[in-house]
Amino acid sequence: MKVTILGNNSALPAFGRHPTSQAVSVHGQILLIDCGEATQIQMQRYSIKWRKLNHIFISHLHGDHYFGLPGLVNSMSLMGRSEALHLYGPKELILILDQILKVADTELSYPLIFHPLPEGSEVLVDAPSFRVTCFPVIHRIQCHGFLIESKTRGRKILPEKCIAMAIPVAFYENLKMGEDYVMPDGTVIENTTLTEEGPAPRRYAYCADTIFTESFLHIVKDVDTIYHESTYLHNDSTKAEARFHTTALQAAQFANMANATQLLLGHFSSKYKDLEPFHQEASSVFSNVHITVEGNVYEI
Amino acid sequence: MKVTILGNNSALPAFGRHPTSQAVSVHGQILLIDCGEATQIQMQRYSIKWRKLNHIFISHLHGDHYFGLPGLVNSMSLMGRSEALHLYGPKELILILDQILKVADTELSYPLIFHPLPEGSEVLVDAPSFRVTCFPVIHRIQCHGFLIESKTRGRKILPEKCIAMAIPVAFYENLKMGEDYVMPDGTVIENTTLTEEGPAPRRYAYCADTIFTESFLHIVKDVDTIYHESTYLHNDSTKAEARFHTTALQAAQFANMANATQLLLGHFSSKYKDLEPFHQEASSVFSNVHITVEGNVYEI
Repeated sequence: MKVTILGNNSALPAFGRHPTSQAVSVHGQILLIDCGEATQIQMQRYSIKWRKLNHIFISHLHGDHYFGLPGLVNSMSLMGRSEALHLYGPKELILILDQILKVADTELSYPLIFHPLPEGSEVLVDAPSFRVTCFPVIHRIQCHGFLIESKTRGRKILPEKCIAMAIPVAFYENLKMGEDYVMPDGTVIENTTLTEEGPAPRRYAYCADTIFTESFLHIVKDVDTIYHESTYLHNDSTKAEARFHTTALQAAQFANMANATQLLLGHFSSKYKDLEPFHQEASSVFSNVHITVEGNVYEI
Repeated sequence: MKVTILGNNSALPAFGRHPTSQAVSVHGQILLIDCGEATQIQMQRYSIKWRKLNHIFISHLHGDHYFGLPGLVNSMSLMGRSEALHLYGPKELILILDQILKVADTELSYPLIFHPLPEGSEVLVDAPSFRVTCFPVIHRIQCHGFLIESKTRGRKILPEKCIAMAIPVAFYENLKMGEDYVMPDGTVIENTTLTEEGPAPRRYAYCADTIFTESFLHIVKDVDTIYHESTYLHNDSTKAEARFHTTALQAAQFANMANATQLLLGHFSSKYKDLEPFHQEASSVFSNVHITVEGNVYEI
């Protein structure tokens, strides 16, 4: 699992930084989290393929998290998409989209299936290769974070070994599940000869826009990677609290409490040109911090 | 009067080209025509100042002409704008904006004054230094073009001459209107000693998205510059007609019929990477054609 940052800024675009959007790649599928203005342009720039995108998650209805959605939804239709697109977001989102499509006299070329977010925490998608759970965070308006878990797909086939030993392709799924292969003459080929350990499941917590709070700590405990907003530096902690945002220091403290392995910071206020102080501040309490950069791909 | 192209593409962004938006600069004010996705980012890129922007005109409610508007309206509020902003567009536009602001629990920092476009042609603004008139064009949904006329501001003061002859500043407005100055001793200083000819009025016709039609030709007759869409090359004229768009050849024919001095082409389909054929096609019937380029500034 990996995440490509499409936008890392808050509220206003600034210094070439775009509003929030992230593309999570998991077992060949793309999950889009938030969709700030110009997300479709950023997707083109960083080669994120629409054809692999079937699920979009919108955390809340502040514009810097979804003003790129109407354009993306529309463009996929103009490109002739036919596969269903699943959209998860606050219930009012579909009213806005419906109105926008209606005044344009537009009928989408594909089914747009809307799933309103519940008030609390809930599994939104439980697919064979990943699971997404939403959880409430604390912001000025209703807002949700998303926990994305990749599932193990079993052991990894070693194709050259399987071919050399003439293992039928039909048996590959059994190999993935750890079975040994028995030759027609009764010889047993041990599974470990034909496979190696597959990728471990991974957990990524996107904590959206939130005040510094432990209210959802139990849900994201022990994840591999946390993305936490850090709109401000800590000398602006009063402003951060008043605006339901977090400082870099607080985000790092949260990652510590959650026992995460890696912390990604984003949603930087447009008042900051230089982001190095965010790194310094967070590094003082958590060792593995990345100041997210648009276009960068982070392994979870 | 000059126009900066912020987006020159149709429907889908492609090849680094953005959806439609133009900033017209007239006597120190900025008039924004259409506002495709990422217009606020393009404004930053090309140094178009928000503080000079008091009027926005939206031709129609296809997304590539207004999906950047909610972000721009919001950002000006976040920047603490206090001056009124006048917005002209189809009547449903304000319903969409109101809903977007409501779900975000946002109250703008400035008065947003909405003027619904009429069905026909009408003067929308008649300011001391410019006038804007809308006119219907023919598209799949209701759509208007805009005629922007700069007004003469009288003769141009020659400050060094006026200072040398101790002309009171309070008399400068009279000088602009062509009056001579009479000294306290009765000596007459001729106006032409203190001023030179001011800039002539200019007329710019933005013809929005339209099928090739003469229906609004009488309104844009003899303008200095026409912007006309040319979504397709002429070998796609059947497709252009079916989709209520125009070809480069037709746009040039229209400019000819309108007796314009200069033609700007834009709204190129995202299927074209190379735009040189648009120039060749239009140049075959009209001599002064520009294939608009984002960031370029065209004198009207």
